[in-house]
Amino acid sequence: MTPISEALEIIRREVFRLESERVVLAETGGRILTEEIRADMDLPPFDRSQMDGFAVKTDDVRNAPVSLRIAGESAAGRGWSGTLQSGEAVRIMTGAPVPAGADSVQKVELTEEENGFIKILKPTATDQNIVRKGAEMKADQSVFGPGELITDNMIATLASFGYQSVSVSRRPKVSILATGSEIVEIGDTPGADQIRNSNSAMLAAFAGRLADVTVLPIARDDLENLKKTVREAIRSCDLLVISGGVSVGDYDFTKPALREIGADVFFERVSLKPGKPTVFARRADTLIFGLPGNPVSIAVTFFVFVRMALLEMQNAAITGLKKGFARLTHPIKATRERDALLPVSLETDEAGHLTIETLRFSGSSNFIAFARANGLVFVPRNKDLEKGEVAKIYFL
Amino acid sequence: MTPISEALEIIRREVFRLESERVVLAETGGRILTEEIRADMDLPPFDRSQMDGFAVKTDDVRNAPVSLRIAGESAAGRGWSGTLQSGEAVRIMTGAPVPAGADSVQKVELTEEENGFIKILKPTATDQNIVRKGAEMKADQSVFGPGELITDNMIATLASFGYQSVSVSRRPKVSILATGSEIVEIGDTPGADQIRNSNSAMLAAFAGRLADVTVLPIARDDLENLKKTVREAIRSCDLLVISGGVSVGDYDFTKPALREIGADVFFERVSLKPGKPTVFARRADTLIFGLPGNPVSIAVTFFVFVRMALLEMQNAAITGLKKGFARLTHPIKATRERDALLPVSLETDEAGHLTIETLRFSGSSNFIAFARANGLVFVPRNKDLEKGEVAKIYFL
Repeated sequence: MTPISEALEIIRREVFRLESERVVLAETGGRILTEEIRADMDLPPFDRSQMDGFAVKTDDVRNAPVSLRIAGESAAGRGWSGTLQSGEAVRIMTGAPVPAGADSVQKVELTEEENGFIKILKPTATDQNIVRKGAEMKADQSVFGPGELITDNMIATLASFGYQSVSVSRRPKVSILATGSEIVEIGDTPGADQIRNSNSAMLAAFAGRLADVTVLPIARDDLENLKKTVREAIRSCDLLVISGGVSVGDYDFTKPALREIGADVFFERVSLKPGKPTVFARRADTLIFGLPGNPVSIAVTFFVFVRMALLEMQNAAITGLKKGFARLTHPIKATRERDALLPVSLETDEAGHLTIETLRFSGSSNFIAFARANGLVFVPRNKDLEKGEVAKIYFL
Repeated sequence: MTPISEALEIIRREVFRLESERVVLAETGGRILTEEIRADMDLPPFDRSQMDGFAVKTDDVRNAPVSLRIAGESAAGRGWSGTLQSGEAVRIMTGAPVPAGADSVQKVELTEEENGFIKILKPTATDQNIVRKGAEMKADQSVFGPGELITDNMIATLASFGYQSVSVSRRPKVSILATGSEIVEIGDTPGADQIRNSNSAMLAAFAGRLADVTVLPIARDDLENLKKTVREAIRSCDLLVISGGVSVGDYDFTKPALREIGADVFFERVSLKPGKPTVFARRADTLIFGLPGNPVSIAVTFFVFVRMALLEMQNAAITGLKKGFARLTHPIKATRERDALLPVSLETDEAGHLTIETLRFSGSSNFIAFARANGLVFVPRNKDLEKGEVAKIYFL
């Protein structure tokens, strides 16, 4: 059995890198940056008022209340071009440039206006209510680098520096193929020995976050048919995910099919529960994963292996799931000879712990419990975890 | 000032509910369910083998090793229709139905085949390697209810029970309008007193998760023009978000414009930092939010107020951000008279605590720091938080 860490290393080694493309800002969410994002200007680009009020010389209002002559007005987008003299104040709006000569802003609520003069009711401190030019970012500073996953929270920054479009990796083309004579399409009524194809829809949802997805029709348990289907599929995708047919049963044709079409199979049994029979192969320019047929095994192996491949292909700097530590609310039995990554629900308690609630699983096919999972807990082989123990977790 | 909780109550009261529509399964992610999802069959629909191996009577193999006659084969999708007799075994594949008369499965690795007989090398326990019919879900049981947000993890379950399409609330139509003479479009070069419009792109990204978004051209600081723009905008959207123009400055026309077009303004100053000048109004069938112009204020008020409105409109059962508790790694100063919700980065430490890393903010406009935020920490008014203290947090 291939250890998990070795399987991940093999994936990293065999992955090929996709080319870059420019994408309009509104469509960059979830994409991987391939250029350096630099500030093209100071932020703020001028000393900016944080309040509606009056720009003053701090020295002038040291003994407030004090009356100052209103010399002009600085509005957002239309600053006051003069230089403030002692004894003067400039009316200023939130977001407007602080005029030369002023070094603080008193908010309008602490002022009283009368006949062209403004009474400043309280003293100010130097820099009060001013964000200095460049305080947030200096022109030409690097903001984000190649390999970063673009999140919604980054969009405002990209917009601020004029990035109408951004260079990102092309999204991988992923095809999804369910196999098994026991599987019928979602719209069909299963016979007595059959179930509906839940795997393809789930894989499409997962992969769709990182890739352009095509779902293929179900392949029956027939070696020649499977070879033909796989041969055709890999012509038009970067990565093929096959679900089912990877056990040691007499009708498990995924591995024979991959070998017979000339694919290199890099691993086919991983020291992982659930997901032992996971297969990873490559044929020319297409990576191929064969995942076990059970929905929960598919979810776990997708997030551990396939997700990494999709992110590596896009040159992401971080390709693993986000790690952390959390406290067990229930004991978990270890598996013999295999490390386990079990879906769990992560919550917090009033003491500020992240806590691990195990889900009521009746087998690796229990995707109804999985619907509530937001993390995976790592259970090292042969080592039971106790209630209250801190365990390594991964965020989904 | 309106307390946060009262502002949320007002939003809940004034929101109108959108109608339902049927959407194909692949497009239900992020939508709100408006029907009850029921199992249309037992899961598994038959006693299912978890292994490749042999189905046996547990009593027959009590004194294993023992040889049994191979009576037939049960493959996935093609079960064995006979009834197992004492002295017999049936070859069985992972996912296949366990035949009548058998009550356990021995995995193939613990068997040896010879001339139509199979030697079972080790005894089995009753139910070993079998998931019993209905163990995961009984036919007609309720699985998900109206008001649930559909996540990727739920897709497999929906597929399993034949939901090719699902009844969900229509997505709200949201229009986004930035105001301010200091704002230029992303593709333009800002003048000396200007900055680019980062707010609309950010709001479009946030709202786009829950709504269909239209971004309008920037509105200058001009009352008549703003009234005209708002009047036109609300004709074709369910919710309008205006950024900027809500301070008390002389060019802050959002509130006057809303009043003059006959909108009811429900609140216009909230006891929240950042986000005090948040405005909430309604005109006929359109909800209107006026958010402060600073990007971080916009982000916080979007997630606290606008997000709730979008989810309430869609009849979601949970419309607030997910709450939790985490431990502060730095002290945080409270704000006078206002509760604060500050963007923070949430991590875990090796003791299994969720920890709060404060971001280096130089003002509520610092969206570069905000790019790393994945939570909000609640800082009650007038009460500083100490390092090491456990604080209430919200997950973004």
